[in-house]
Amino acid sequence: MFGFSLRPRQKKPAQVAKDRLQVLLAHERGRGADTADFLPQLQNDVIAVIRKYVQVADDDVDIRMERGDEISSLEINIEIPAEAPKKQAARS
Amino acid sequence: MFGFSLRPRQKKPAQVAKDRLQVLLAHERGRGADTADFLPQLQNDVIAVIRKYVQVADDDVDIRMERGDEISSLEINIEIPAEAPKKQAARS
Repeated sequence: MFGFSLRPRQKKPAQVAKDRLQVLLAHERGRGADTADFLPQLQNDVIAVIRKYVQVADDDVDIRMERGDEISSLEINIEIPAEAPKKQAARS
Repeated sequence: MFGFSLRPRQKKPAQVAKDRLQVLLAHERGRGADTADFLPQLQNDVIAVIRKYVQVADDDVDIRMERGDEISSLEINIEIPAEAPKKQAARS
């Protein structure tokens, strides 16, 4: 829909040891639609959900938000220390 | 990091009235990292979080998952009926 696809960049050896998680959210409002821009609240919820699965320090989270008339987009980049993940989140 | 950016496609008039939400998650595992692939569980959690803000019917959710040795990616496309959104989710 938004015409983007993943093209992983060349990895520099120093960056290879860490895992990385990238989250991109794009909200396109239909003409005449009155839907509120909920990406700012969604941002905190998405990070909280990710923390159920991996330990993430605040410094390892980079957030970019762009807000246009028709499209708002949110990009969250997270570096994950590459040791064992947290216990699998219990089925809620 | 994964070198993608949003390029909204040409909107066909018939699709303009609906809002659309696209979520792209990409998990790149560092060489030698042993992190589990948690995207499948994250998928359900992300959709549940989105449902706090907008009503979403199951038929309006399109999910694509790609799993490689180094990178797993998850794409969630959601069509949102363009009337008034749910009451804003209470601050939890």
